[in-house]
Amino acid sequence: MTVEEEVLAKIKPGPEEKEKLREVSSEILANVNSAAKKLGIKGITPKLVGSAARGTWISGTHDLDIFIAFPENTSREELEKNGLLIAREVAKEGQNIEERYAEHPYLNMEYRGFDVDLVPCFAVGSASDIKSAVDRTPFHNEFIKMRVTGREDDVLTMKQFMKGTGTYGSELRTQGFSGYLTELLIVHYGSFRNMIRNACNWKPGLEIDMLEHGTVKHNDPLVVIDPTDPKRNVAAALSLNRFAQFIDACREYSEEPSEEFFFPEKNNPMKDREVLDMMHSRGSSFIAIYFNTPDLVDDILYPQLDKMEHSIRALLEEYEFQILNSGYWAKERSIVIVELISAELPYVKKHRGPPVWVKEHAKGFKEKYNNSEDLFSMYIEDGFYVADIRRKFTTAKELLENRIQNCSIGKHIGKIVRSGFTIVEDDDILKIDDPDFRRFLRKWEQGK
Amino acid sequence: MTVEEEVLAKIKPGPEEKEKLREVSSEILANVNSAAKKLGIKGITPKLVGSAARGTWISGTHDLDIFIAFPENTSREELEKNGLLIAREVAKEGQNIEERYAEHPYLNMEYRGFDVDLVPCFAVGSASDIKSAVDRTPFHNEFIKMRVTGREDDVLTMKQFMKGTGTYGSELRTQGFSGYLTELLIVHYGSFRNMIRNACNWKPGLEIDMLEHGTVKHNDPLVVIDPTDPKRNVAAALSLNRFAQFIDACREYSEEPSEEFFFPEKNNPMKDREVLDMMHSRGSSFIAIYFNTPDLVDDILYPQLDKMEHSIRALLEEYEFQILNSGYWAKERSIVIVELISAELPYVKKHRGPPVWVKEHAKGFKEKYNNSEDLFSMYIEDGFYVADIRRKFTTAKELLENRIQNCSIGKHIGKIVRSGFTIVEDDDILKIDDPDFRRFLRKWEQGK
Repeated sequence: MTVEEEVLAKIKPGPEEKEKLREVSSEILANVNSAAKKLGIKGITPKLVGSAARGTWISGTHDLDIFIAFPENTSREELEKNGLLIAREVAKEGQNIEERYAEHPYLNMEYRGFDVDLVPCFAVGSASDIKSAVDRTPFHNEFIKMRVTGREDDVLTMKQFMKGTGTYGSELRTQGFSGYLTELLIVHYGSFRNMIRNACNWKPGLEIDMLEHGTVKHNDPLVVIDPTDPKRNVAAALSLNRFAQFIDACREYSEEPSEEFFFPEKNNPMKDREVLDMMHSRGSSFIAIYFNTPDLVDDILYPQLDKMEHSIRALLEEYEFQILNSGYWAKERSIVIVELISAELPYVKKHRGPPVWVKEHAKGFKEKYNNSEDLFSMYIEDGFYVADIRRKFTTAKELLENRIQNCSIGKHIGKIVRSGFTIVEDDDILKIDDPDFRRFLRKWEQGK
Repeated sequence: MTVEEEVLAKIKPGPEEKEKLREVSSEILANVNSAAKKLGIKGITPKLVGSAARGTWISGTHDLDIFIAFPENTSREELEKNGLLIAREVAKEGQNIEERYAEHPYLNMEYRGFDVDLVPCFAVGSASDIKSAVDRTPFHNEFIKMRVTGREDDVLTMKQFMKGTGTYGSELRTQGFSGYLTELLIVHYGSFRNMIRNACNWKPGLEIDMLEHGTVKHNDPLVVIDPTDPKRNVAAALSLNRFAQFIDACREYSEEPSEEFFFPEKNNPMKDREVLDMMHSRGSSFIAIYFNTPDLVDDILYPQLDKMEHSIRALLEEYEFQILNSGYWAKERSIVIVELISAELPYVKKHRGPPVWVKEHAKGFKEKYNNSEDLFSMYIEDGFYVADIRRKFTTAKELLENRIQNCSIGKHIGKIVRSGFTIVEDDDILKIDDPDFRRFLRKWEQGK
């Protein structure tokens, strides 16, 4: 068996799993119809969409996306009200029912072992007339269903390859490939192997427009024009790094295929000794700031952590600390960690003033610093006044303690941070002993 | 008395000094004529040129420039031979005779307390037809003599102002204002005060072309077209920093005139305690490299020291050491000293490789570093491969010891440095206790 056949054997749903899924989804579709009838709501059509509908789900995932399509002329209020009424009626037979919000409310429940979303949408005439983002999904479903037949195995294999290499998932935490994007790419390239072969030579700016109907210039690393909407780039959520990481993985896999790409061994958490060895052998300075993670969904939390990481980098650089690497991690606690050339700087700081010949600024600069207690020396360099002055913050810790509040760190995290945070440096980072954090630290060891 | 009158009283030659100079110079001119006669060399004209000829010498300086003009059709060989013959004959009555070389040989001697140059030149028809750089001087002399009459005091005052503020002298060590340039500027602005007033507003790119005959675009901070040669910028030797320093001094003087600008108190050498306090309060790292000064004239030595300083800065920066300030100093020993943010860096160094999508480079980069013992970690950042590798030199000292030989440091200094040098850091800099060096170090205290 080839590597890919071995992989497929592990992830392809068997006849029983397929039958069960068919049965459960039919049952729910029927329940939606009878609920609507019972409630006197007319004109709706329930549809199974997503990977379950297209036979491209990985064995063991039990997700069902049931869309409840309302006539196009339904008002948004009515759709929201009646959509939820139907969903709640159906959910009477489900467990762990939760109302969630995307562009409009929908309902999530557990039903006979499946994780089911009941999502109201508008039955618009074409994907370019959508009234809400979810209205697009049924069109995606139609387009893929018609073309993916016979290539489901390739989609499955590719999804698993992306999962294993950390590039699957278009949510903001990952910024990788969505399921729909993966399916489109397999349809475009025809097979798993051919897509891998081609991706080895991908470059940013690549545009795939299967129907040659794109109308907008996109500025993303990869552009895949939505066959159901000429204005939309399906790969808009894919980050440059995830794009590059996928290319790199495809090349490595081409050179030496192995199951490890699909099912990588989970890293062991780094032991205290390993963390210390890692830090001491690099000789750099580590500083971490941590706080209680605010109660937010991932798609809000991770962008805020990302923003915080960037703000902290910008703050440190503004005060002349030199950054090597940084990252963030979150569970109950959130941590932003930065590796610096040095967490300490000399007292003296070079402060360049105006050119000597800009008389009005020159005077102000000289007056300001010549009478300052913080001046070490003033001189002319390359035609500019330079004042060697006392640095405000000589350690990164002091700087962060005093200025992190002024950073632009997002509303929710900002609130938490204002109520308290802890800064640890170097060996004290051992105090954070969550095994997942210790796994995260391995990125300083072997690269990711 | 105004400040300027006070100053003038100290620097203006009295009647006696003038009479003595007139007498000695006439005597030498006569001696040149009789030497030529004795040697059977015909057609030469001796001339007194320079500040002595124009009444713009500062009291106490005893320099006489005697030019021996040969007919234009004299060959260069003949001029050099006969010029030296005459000069040697004249010098029989002088002391400390020295043959020196500019574009061609000339003779320097002491004669009745004066420092006399005897310089052969061609008597060309106009300054634009000169056959050798010195041929220009007699034209300068004529131009200034005709115009400076009545403004000699202003020239004297300005020269002293420039001396006091460290901007006088066009030799390569200073890169300031030459005597001729100073005289031209006084002729142009009419007086000391008016020149000071105007210089407060000077900006780089200023062009002064008194005869409106300039033909060439010059790229110097200050352009003063030579009235005797439309192609030449008299201020070509003036550096941007000296230019800026002069502007700054003029402004300071305008605000609060005082004799200090003309006769600054000489700094005291820094005591051990002061040097240590200066270094410790700044908190930065100092490193100095010193060696025996090669036996060179200033106009060769200082450019080579300058070049060495720049090469050392470039070397340190190439290896990621961050420079705050640097300088050089020379007497029997030469010293290049550098102030760094830190003389130590961590073991780890970030090494950015090719973008992931440049396949051919990507492969080479990964192969090179993945098998290297010096690799800490490899990852993708902003679409580029980055290898965190072991730094070659973690201290500035180690780097300089190993790589200074490869620096471009000029022929003569290079030879000396190859035969031996010493590197001292921080407190060990106290070992260099030459009082002049200790004065030089004050630039870190008060700026210059």
